[in-house]
Amino acid sequence: MKFCSLCGSELTLGIPEGDDRERHICDSCETIHYQNPKIVAGTLPIVGDKVLLCRRAIEPRKGFWTLPAGFMENEESVKEAARRETWEEACARTCQEELYTIISIPYISQVYMMYRAELSEPGFAAGPESLEVRLFSEEEIPWKELAFRTVSRTLELFFQDRATGTFPLHDETLE
Amino acid sequence: MKFCSLCGSELTLGIPEGDDRERHICDSCETIHYQNPKIVAGTLPIVGDKVLLCRRAIEPRKGFWTLPAGFMENEESVKEAARRETWEEACARTCQEELYTIISIPYISQVYMMYRAELSEPGFAAGPESLEVRLFSEEEIPWKELAFRTVSRTLELFFQDRATGTFPLHDETLE
Repeated sequence: MKFCSLCGSELTLGIPEGDDRERHICDSCETIHYQNPKIVAGTLPIVGDKVLLCRRAIEPRKGFWTLPAGFMENEESVKEAARRETWEEACARTCQEELYTIISIPYISQVYMMYRAELSEPGFAAGPESLEVRLFSEEEIPWKELAFRTVSRTLELFFQDRATGTFPLHDETLE
Repeated sequence: MKFCSLCGSELTLGIPEGDDRERHICDSCETIHYQNPKIVAGTLPIVGDKVLLCRRAIEPRKGFWTLPAGFMENEESVKEAARRETWEEACARTCQEELYTIISIPYISQVYMMYRAELSEPGFAAGPESLEVRLFSEEEIPWKELAFRTVSRTLELFFQDRATGTFPLHDETLE
């Protein structure tokens, strides 16, 4: 961030009055430009004893398997974002969504929010950002070909919890 | 958003290839400037049968009562953000935080994430953004002088749940 997005002037780095950390400040129009973490919302779609995974058609981690998830957009709820991403990446409609993992990743300033979900219609297919979409039983999960640690962690917790039959919310941090 | 924060050129509005909504695009350095919701993290600090509220010393809603909460910063976890805000606004240290309400507010593109929490040390006091900090029993809550709907909704759910003794996660949307 080098220029003010409102007036185009060059920004300086400084600690505003009453603040305790450096911000990008526009000395010309006096705007302080804050930067905040982004939410990645998605689902863990469950069909019988299997879960749905998508093989990524785009970077990062092209060719690796992921749960349908993506950046939450302005003017939507977290659940709407998770449903939209599932539709876009897996052409699947979900219902009975329950928030299941909230994983903060401070080193990239992201927060993953993943819902356990059922499919409300039986169909699914690869959307434009997926090479293929498939159902996997626990034994079939391609653990070494998963795209992100948030995905492997969510699946790991799910299979652990499924063995006990209770699915508490998991609020964790990846260091 | 009018100017590219990376190169200073004027931005145009357009739908990037493969996207389905308008973004601010820099035709000069080809950067797409996404805008995403912000997380507001905070706590509902509980001391015996009372809860802690702060009277706001700053706008918006100066003079009204709120739970300690504020914008999550880059490079922290949601729980760290909630603890930091509680320290800054109420000079209170929390422990045993349990995520309790997640309230999406699509019309201002914010997501509130509030933790039920105990105080790990007995003291509290008004931080620079608070006029006063006080403990309130259910009967004493100043319902008409609460700063935000997310605060009144979190308190309402808490007193309802306390009557039953179970505190499930509430994932809601304010329309």
